Amino acid sequence: MNGLYNLADVHPSELRALVARALELRRGAGAKRFQGKALGLLFLSPSLRTQASFQRAAGKLGLELVHLSGAGIWQVEVRDGVVMDGIAAEHVREAAAVLGRYVDVLAVRAFATHRSLAEDLADPVVRSFQRHAGVPVINMESALWHPCQALADWTTLDQLGVPSDGKFVLSWAWHPRGLPHAVPNSTLCMAAQRGMEVVLHCPEGYELHEDVMSLADELGARSGASITTVHDRELALDGAHVIYAKSWGALDTWGDAEAEATRRADYRDAWCVQPDWLGENTRFFHCLPVRRNVVVADAVLNGPASAVLEQAENRLHAQTALLESILGRKDSGKTTTEPSR
Amino acid sequence: MNGLYNLADVHPSELRALVARALELRRGAGAKRFQGKALGLLFLSPSLRTQASFQRAAGKLGLELVHLSGAGIWQVEVRDGVVMDGIAAEHVREAAAVLGRYVDVLAVRAFATHRSLAEDLADPVVRSFQRHAGVPVINMESALWHPCQALADWTTLDQLGVPSDGKFVLSWAWHPRGLPHAVPNSTLCMAAQRGMEVVLHCPEGYELHEDVMSLADELGARSGASITTVHDRELALDGAHVIYAKSWGALDTWGDAEAEATRRADYRDAWCVQPDWLGENTRFFHCLPVRRNVVVADAVLNGPASAVLEQAENRLHAQTALLESILGRKDSGKTTTEPSR
Amino acid sequence: MNGLYNLADVHPSELRALVARALELRRGAGAKRFQGKALGLLFLSPSLRTQASFQRAAGKLGLELVHLSGAGIWQVEVRDGVVMDGIAAEHVREAAAVLGRYVDVLAVRAFATHRSLAEDLADPVVRSFQRHAGVPVINMESALWHPCQALADWTTLDQLGVPSDGKFVLSWAWHPRGLPHAVPNSTLCMAAQRGMEVVLHCPEGYELHEDVMSLADELGARSGASITTVHDRELALDGAHVIYAKSWGALDTWGDAEAEATRRADYRDAWCVQPDWLGENTRFFHCLPVRRNVVVADAVLNGPASAVLEQAENRLHAQTALLESILGRKDSGKTTTEPSR
Repeated sequence: MNGLYNLADVHPSELRALVARALELRRGAGAKRFQGKALGLLFLSPSLRTQASFQRAAGKLGLELVHLSGAGIWQVEVRDGVVMDGIAAEHVREAAAVLGRYVDVLAVRAFATHRSLAEDLADPVVRSFQRHAGVPVINMESALWHPCQALADWTTLDQLGVPSDGKFVLSWAWHPRGLPHAVPNSTLCMAAQRGMEVVLHCPEGYELHEDVMSLADELGARSGASITTVHDRELALDGAHVIYAKSWGALDTWGDAEAEATRRADYRDAWCVQPDWLGENTRFFHCLPVRRNVVVADAVLNGPASAVLEQAENRLHAQTALLESILGRKDSGKTTTEPSR
Repeated sequence: MNGLYNLADVHPSELRALVARALELRRGAGAKRFQGKALGLLFLSPSLRTQASFQRAAGKLGLELVHLSGAGIWQVEVRDGVVMDGIAAEHVREAAAVLGRYVDVLAVRAFATHRSLAEDLADPVVRSFQRHAGVPVINMESALWHPCQALADWTTLDQLGVPSDGKFVLSWAWHPRGLPHAVPNSTLCMAAQRGMEVVLHCPEGYELHEDVMSLADELGARSGASITTVHDRELALDGAHVIYAKSWGALDTWGDAEAEATRRADYRDAWCVQPDWLGENTRFFHCLPVRRNVVVADAVLNGPASAVLEQAENRLHAQTALLESILGRKDSGKTTTEPSR
Repeated sequence: MNGLYNLADVHPSELRALVARALELRRGAGAKRFQGKALGLLFLSPSLRTQASFQRAAGKLGLELVHLSGAGIWQVEVRDGVVMDGIAAEHVREAAAVLGRYVDVLAVRAFATHRSLAEDLADPVVRSFQRHAGVPVINMESALWHPCQALADWTTLDQLGVPSDGKFVLSWAWHPRGLPHAVPNSTLCMAAQRGMEVVLHCPEGYELHEDVMSLADELGARSGASITTVHDRELALDGAHVIYAKSWGALDTWGDAEAEATRRADYRDAWCVQPDWLGENTRFFHCLPVRRNVVVADAVLNGPASAVLEQAENRLHAQTALLESILGRKDSGKTTTEPSR
């Protein structure tokens, strides 16, 4: 593989190989060692699991690490042609290309900003790093996609024996704020790629973007998955193998925090996953971090149906497999370090 | 050892073995190497020595490192059963358990918050991580205890040949603010465990918590130490082998910064350690960071009596010995990584 | 070498050897490995390139790393004799000496504060670390000097075949704020040490400090370089092999942001490097981060004359060579770790 921006860019057969390798690593197989290679981690948004699991993956693979996070980094401008007389001191063209000179793979996190829907739909930061880094780039969650989470989730589905054609319900949940769509977008498309009976369960107005739905349909057409949006709870949850809970903001109030808060006010409590949402064999998934008793009741998270810790652990194994795949390519050498004269 | 929350939880014979090993490491002995093992460092409070010495210890032991600090981490909720609609985005049940999936030992720092005495006495953050991590947890300073500092201090006492039954004076000092009790609590109990003639020297109202005094008495009863509180300076300092200076807040104005400031106003200057506090053979100790000419005069810190740099260096050696002990246990393997189905 | 504060402290023959080694490393030569040695990185100011390139250099050299950056570090007092009742919780005497106990080389970044010119000219933070660390200190940009950048720039000049006696124009550029002098100071003196025809091109009032000009003259007298200040653009740029752009503040409005903004207002746009500033064989240099279309036009940065990415990559190679030189000294062992009694 040559980096990873969106899981949907990768053929399902390749994903299945990655998932199988992740499960091998989980069972204790030794990771490949890449002497003299380096991984760069750039966090422009907060992180616990991702910072921790990528650091550990680097350790397992014997990679040298360049780890940049927190407040001590220059603000990065991503618009082309702009006169940079504002806050940003550095343009992504330089930031990306420079980091690409120091490392062999660069992983970047930059959430949606909710300044404008058009801006977030363009997914400018991670895509710009991808464009300018000169080395493979891993998306550690952009405005639109969280492919490492989706790869770990597929790994967890396989680990837990959830049938490939099982019923997978992605359910909206209440949260004090309107959150980005990266996780629901990637979750929906992952389940579609895996060939599942995919149900998007949400209040009216909380549908995902039409481009994402189209992509999921397209992926499903190839894998045999079905994708439906169901507002009725009983219908949505009936027979579910997995309920994957996540909160996100409505597209038509994007960037207007007050309007979003008003719109969702009625859904509080009613859209917090309760034990009675789960059938006998339903597994509960969430990407974490999760607000207890807001998004999901304690009783669900503390109970045997919860797979959230398996999902989190599989971040490590899936990312280790991903890095093996990227660094193991025959053409993974950089050629930019030769003196140009 | 299976983690370290409070030095008082460890038998003095085991502590003596750790101290002896720390001194061996200091003299240049090679540390054990733990291939394929990882140390997690989670800083929810500021740090210089602790961040640096634990990173170096990981290097010496060949450990893979997961290092999380600064502003880029989700705020963590520690109360059970709470509806998480506030600032905290993640519950410690998940944060701890997830990190425990990535590393073999997890070290955590979380200072007292001074929001309420009851809260700080419950020491909720580090104890919650200990409860939920599923791997050994090292307390890098909690609301109540700083065992790594105390272990380094014991190492320093041995290094400098301070007699086991010598006189050890823990002296309060002035500071602009009321500080946490973790260091004085751990210092007092360490000296009690070591069997010393322990004197707590402070203005009236600045006694340590009765539970800590009881614990120190209990430890002293076993080791042969005596524990007394002395307000009179001359009496307190007479014949001291060690003056260990530290500032802390009064328990009955806990959480009320203004009341604390008023209460301590008269002690400014009078409670700054001066050269004439020290006898001919008295050593000056402080855990650092220390405010010069506020807590202690330049002349003391710059003079030959000061042991503060030895204490700081011994943080590295004591923690290296501690990690060797924790990771070298026969049962140190985790079993949580097996697929659960 | 025993640390690096200012490139001018190092003999040009030694610099030439470092540059040659940096170019070897760039062409793929293996770096020396220093088992059991540690590098400390302390960032008291923001950084992207420096954080990343020093981490990677540590990886290449097999060094253990102690990496401290961001908000989670105590504020450091550097004035001697002060009563520390303000914000700073730790004095540099302790901070430096403690870190020096944990690592074999300590690298520190602390920019000019612009509180007062006298303070910044004394370069108090990095010099204090140098004085008190007890191990070699590398200046990762202080108030006055940025020697690692200058060493990388010399490497880039050699890499690109810029003649040793070529014309080197350090040109002021507009920027919304008055910036520190570390880079222009080090750039000017580096070009002087290399024996070039050095031109300082700036508006009146933006000359560098007379001590720096004197030092450059002195270095030039030894190397055969000439140093002139030229306000006329055509004269300054004519025949230039290199235009090195950088913005900085005026000395006589130092610390007065408003006066500085007023003074420079007329230079906006007129002092943004444009394609027509460059002759056929002129190379464009900048240390980065750079504000596009403020300091330099997109067309210059995106064009073939730009050497900024080579400069940035050479940070890695020059610093790797520098660390090899410092750690490879015969007397690089510390003796401070012996128990003092």
